[in-house]
Amino acid sequence: VLSHPSHPGNIGAAARALKTMGLTKLFLINPQRYPDRQAGWMASNAGDILERAVVCESLEKALVGTTLVVALTARVRDLSHRAMALREAAPQLIEEALSGEVAIVFGNEMSGLSNAELDKCQLLVTIPANPGYTSLNLAAAVQVVAYELRTAALGHVIPAAAPFPMATHEELEYFYRHLEDVLCGSGFLDPEEPRRLMRRLRRLFSRARLEKQEIDILRGVLKSMHNRVE
Amino acid sequence: VLSHPSHPGNIGAAARALKTMGLTKLFLINPQRYPDRQAGWMASNAGDILERAVVCESLEKALVGTTLVVALTARVRDLSHRAMALREAAPQLIEEALSGEVAIVFGNEMSGLSNAELDKCQLLVTIPANPGYTSLNLAAAVQVVAYELRTAALGHVIPAAAPFPMATHEELEYFYRHLEDVLCGSGFLDPEEPRRLMRRLRRLFSRARLEKQEIDILRGVLKSMHNRVE
Repeated sequence: VLSHPSHPGNIGAAARALKTMGLTKLFLINPQRYPDRQAGWMASNAGDILERAVVCESLEKALVGTTLVVALTARVRDLSHRAMALREAAPQLIEEALSGEVAIVFGNEMSGLSNAELDKCQLLVTIPANPGYTSLNLAAAVQVVAYELRTAALGHVIPAAAPFPMATHEELEYFYRHLEDVLCGSGFLDPEEPRRLMRRLRRLFSRARLEKQEIDILRGVLKSMHNRVE
Repeated sequence: VLSHPSHPGNIGAAARALKTMGLTKLFLINPQRYPDRQAGWMASNAGDILERAVVCESLEKALVGTTLVVALTARVRDLSHRAMALREAAPQLIEEALSGEVAIVFGNEMSGLSNAELDKCQLLVTIPANPGYTSLNLAAAVQVVAYELRTAALGHVIPAAAPFPMATHEELEYFYRHLEDVLCGSGFLDPEEPRRLMRRLRRLFSRARLEKQEIDILRGVLKSMHNRVE
């Protein structure tokens, strides 16, 4: 929920931020300029989120049916509600969203949320920022919050690339023997005392966690050297 | 490091994103329009970061002196480097930054990073996004990365064992050139088309995160080969 946003570009950028993180619902309370070409332009390919955005004339109306209302705030106020850091709050918001509607309310770019608006919220959430400059751009704050929610929803387990098959112990040992032979042949290793340097090389390749196919490549390299050496 | 950014607004917004998270160094590779009023406007009160931004004509120049080069990428490619989710990578980047300079490279808004640029990076980091729409705005991506780094830094515990000095970007590139020369000389690489295999080898050594001393050992290996080959 963006309350009284001033810049249509921020509305579009917020729509894009939501879509990149798999969120779809955008509410706008009395936007200063909306609809606006700038919003569409900043939304990029998230125009669908923008089209379905609900424009309300008061925060009250946007909150109908919600079971938890969270205010995003940079400042923690004197007489504040419970305040949590975003990282800490995100899993709780996801859990809450399993059974009810959770609203996250962002204030105006310059003035933030009014006290009347804060009164309607049950929880304050802050993005821990540089104390010397806490002022995130509105859409940037939406992006960070959406990112935290997605990460929390995925359960923090994000598979990177599907791994390639790893080399087996035997393949590794075979490679190290091959390497040692070639390096003794080339004069790099002293055949009487090859241990120390081989240990360094093993340490290096161990860190890399060699894949099967990489062993093939490295042994191809060694073979090409060996043929030339002989 | 923003490589070939098209929109000056994104440069300004990126500066603001950095400052809110306590980061200060911004490098720009061949920005399309810069300096530009729009950049200053979007930077808001982070004009100091913008003023100190370093404009370079190539990625190579921006990377001088870095010990770890990270590419932010939405796609995970076939023949990719090691890829990590941002959440997982952040603490490692912070740890690395205690002893060396870490560069995080963001590609152009439309085309991302080129393969040549990716080849200079040792680690791919992705922001796990909606598979149906992975396209974060450039400055939004900078904001999320900066946020993760700050969060990791605030929770960071300094590691016990002092790490060995890491090879710099230039040392790595020098090693790769040496390797390519020797492998072309030995007939292992087709000098017409050395790229694919070199990319595999870069990927392997990137995973290992080579130390200064290991570069010396590997170049000693190559030299011993080369002498025999000739």
